[in-house]
Amino acid sequence: MLEELKKQVYEANMELPRRGLITYTWGNVSGIDRETGYFVIKPSGVDYDKLTLDDMVVMDLDGNKIEGNYKPSSDTPTHLELYKKYPEIGGIAHTHSSEATSWAQAGRDIPLYGTTHADHFYGSIPCARKLTPEEIYSVYEKNTGLVIIETFEKRGINPMHTPGVLCTNHGPFTWGKDATEAVQNAVVLEEVAKMATKTELINPKVKPAPDCIRDKHFFRKHGANAYYGQ
Amino acid sequence: MLEELKKQVYEANMELPRRGLITYTWGNVSGIDRETGYFVIKPSGVDYDKLTLDDMVVMDLDGNKIEGNYKPSSDTPTHLELYKKYPEIGGIAHTHSSEATSWAQAGRDIPLYGTTHADHFYGSIPCARKLTPEEIYSVYEKNTGLVIIETFEKRGINPMHTPGVLCTNHGPFTWGKDATEAVQNAVVLEEVAKMATKTELINPKVKPAPDCIRDKHFFRKHGANAYYGQ
Amino acid sequence: MLEELKKQVYEANMELPRRGLITYTWGNVSGIDRETGYFVIKPSGVDYDKLTLDDMVVMDLDGNKIEGNYKPSSDTPTHLELYKKYPEIGGIAHTHSSEATSWAQAGRDIPLYGTTHADHFYGSIPCARKLTPEEIYSVYEKNTGLVIIETFEKRGINPMHTPGVLCTNHGPFTWGKDATEAVQNAVVLEEVAKMATKTELINPKVKPAPDCIRDKHFFRKHGANAYYGQ
Amino acid sequence: MLEELKKQVYEANMELPRRGLITYTWGNVSGIDRETGYFVIKPSGVDYDKLTLDDMVVMDLDGNKIEGNYKPSSDTPTHLELYKKYPEIGGIAHTHSSEATSWAQAGRDIPLYGTTHADHFYGSIPCARKLTPEEIYSVYEKNTGLVIIETFEKRGINPMHTPGVLCTNHGPFTWGKDATEAVQNAVVLEEVAKMATKTELINPKVKPAPDCIRDKHFFRKHGANAYYGQ
Repeated sequence: MLEELKKQVYEANMELPRRGLITYTWGNVSGIDRETGYFVIKPSGVDYDKLTLDDMVVMDLDGNKIEGNYKPSSDTPTHLELYKKYPEIGGIAHTHSSEATSWAQAGRDIPLYGTTHADHFYGSIPCARKLTPEEIYSVYEKNTGLVIIETFEKRGINPMHTPGVLCTNHGPFTWGKDATEAVQNAVVLEEVAKMATKTELINPKVKPAPDCIRDKHFFRKHGANAYYGQ
Repeated sequence: MLEELKKQVYEANMELPRRGLITYTWGNVSGIDRETGYFVIKPSGVDYDKLTLDDMVVMDLDGNKIEGNYKPSSDTPTHLELYKKYPEIGGIAHTHSSEATSWAQAGRDIPLYGTTHADHFYGSIPCARKLTPEEIYSVYEKNTGLVIIETFEKRGINPMHTPGVLCTNHGPFTWGKDATEAVQNAVVLEEVAKMATKTELINPKVKPAPDCIRDKHFFRKHGANAYYGQ
Repeated sequence: MLEELKKQVYEANMELPRRGLITYTWGNVSGIDRETGYFVIKPSGVDYDKLTLDDMVVMDLDGNKIEGNYKPSSDTPTHLELYKKYPEIGGIAHTHSSEATSWAQAGRDIPLYGTTHADHFYGSIPCARKLTPEEIYSVYEKNTGLVIIETFEKRGINPMHTPGVLCTNHGPFTWGKDATEAVQNAVVLEEVAKMATKTELINPKVKPAPDCIRDKHFFRKHGANAYYGQ
Repeated sequence: MLEELKKQVYEANMELPRRGLITYTWGNVSGIDRETGYFVIKPSGVDYDKLTLDDMVVMDLDGNKIEGNYKPSSDTPTHLELYKKYPEIGGIAHTHSSEATSWAQAGRDIPLYGTTHADHFYGSIPCARKLTPEEIYSVYEKNTGLVIIETFEKRGINPMHTPGVLCTNHGPFTWGKDATEAVQNAVVLEEVAKMATKTELINPKVKPAPDCIRDKHFFRKHGANAYYGQ
């Protein structure tokens, strides 16, 4: 069932340690098949060294396990909320990569300081508000999804233009049209976060890049008038 | 004698250079067999490149060498005190890994800034007080163990919930149910220390994460109600 | 056509990921044949993993494609302006390497703090002014070349003595007598940028090195009286 | 001639890129045979990738080349002065390693913040004063050696207890009983410099470690009462 999707999601998961975004089991990637409404996700707490294609878990959007020998990632309810709310999202990645997680721990949006950022994220990368104790002690992972959605809705951010978020005191989630792109955006976010930290060290009074840089670079790569690439 | 334990301790020692926690011989791992009361530890000052399974040293809890061609690690008396005081501890690791050692040199506890920390350490990671000149000039390595114990006892910290410590002007010790887990906690501590430094750079006024984050994440992974993993 | 140049430019491009200066496709290198006036450049948005010698694109100095299956790098007009203005330049490299890009995002020149810098760049590495919205919305990549030239001309900097520049909110361009040297200067710039950041952290009141250090080291390696090397 | 010494010096040079202390040709190691008074040193500006045992250059203490196809390192006169002044020195290493060089550029001694430092360097690692323009424009590399000696003599530092120095605006030199140990001290210095920078970031008001830590750890590893190692 969904063999190609499973393969893509498995490969996307394995890209996390290759890119240095993962220590031990601290991350997970999923991808969805919009026709069946099923999504494939990494099992919970399984070492990347031992992970195989057959370990992938298939879930439906009500949170039922459809196939798989393992329990799905404990973050599955977060993925599920994002898939339900945003039909454009085809894949989701979560890591504790150190640069992006440090911004999440610091509780700050990552300002758009340059074209590397603008090529991939249209505007600052938002940091969602803290969860309340009630939200944490009830359905924590579902509420993590809901607070991400609240952040994008309240601020009017298009999640396909800004395909990532920081969860305060936790870490980043990124997404894309599929699992592969979700992981690519995790890689970019980590690099953008690292450079933003350095930028502020070098010039503590630095201001975000002007909007014309953001617009020029984002739309050079995305949308009807894109001219980057082949 | 204790061939399986020796193998585990040897492998745990060899994991230190693989994880980038060690320069030259700056570290050591031990593991204990609670039935015999013997523990296995790395020999002093032997290169990791040349270290073999047969070089491991077997000690008893009175500090006598039971087996081995080499002198045990100079930090053996520190390990011994921890094993004697805390019967739950099955393995201990000591490194001079750069991120954690920098916190030890700075003489500060590592605040709990996020879920990566809370998944593994319940609360801030304590920095033990400086040793006095008398403590240093008498039985230094034993007193290092005693000041770690003093820190946990005075502050009422459960060493199995917070399996690591920073020794001021020196570096970290971590432990766990066995040598393998002790090294895993050394890896986690290094990552947590790195992110705490960056977090404070990004937001100099950052506050520790709320207790609900600490409780939720720690007990999601540990204890009777854990639901992370398989 | 220009087979040797293509080979050199291809190898110079492949050196970028080997040296850790590149994430995904974020960079490009070109080299020029001054006899024909043709230059060879990386195609736009092609993965380094898949890049082959045959993918290289040949352009003339009017911006016409002479040979190649792909569109040239979107930054081609920047390269072109530099080749037209400065006949000594034989190769150009552009990256988003994190240390140098952080200085570009911070909008600061990199001060000459030591001999590592002075061995390769005679004086501070300039940061070009921001482009205006008009410059960005018209012929952006060409104007990037023009603002680099404006920076060197206005400040009276010899581009062969200071073979690199930072574009505000964007990243570095470096050059040299050929594509190989352009990439070497990108490597050096990254290292110099990293050390300048650390230098200011260690001593926030640090001053640039005296002119005698700059002159001694630069001319020890460059010009008629050089005595470094064989 | 001196085949064993050549081999050791060659291997010590090759250890620099393996340990990440070198970019391109920015460094050199030498070792001396005190019986003949000849020392072996890396040739100037030769790539580490291409360096062979036969490329090593043999010099005498008057600066005459005794054997070798290449010119010796441009820093040869610095090595020579140190060998002449301190008969205990058997090997010398020079790098532009980024952490130590950043302290040199910042013009600061590296304070002794912990046991990692004290295990190898007895007290702060001194930063030599700036050279005067006259010293730079006359015999620069020789004067670099003389200002190192001046630093140790004026401050009464034992060069075998503190086997390294920072040259302002330049970078580190380290030494030891032979070329192998000189490179080991370069590795240690780099690690100590990195941790010192982080220590000050984590606690801007940090004080150096007390003298009892310095004495205990240094003499645990060095001298008649050493008990570290086998």
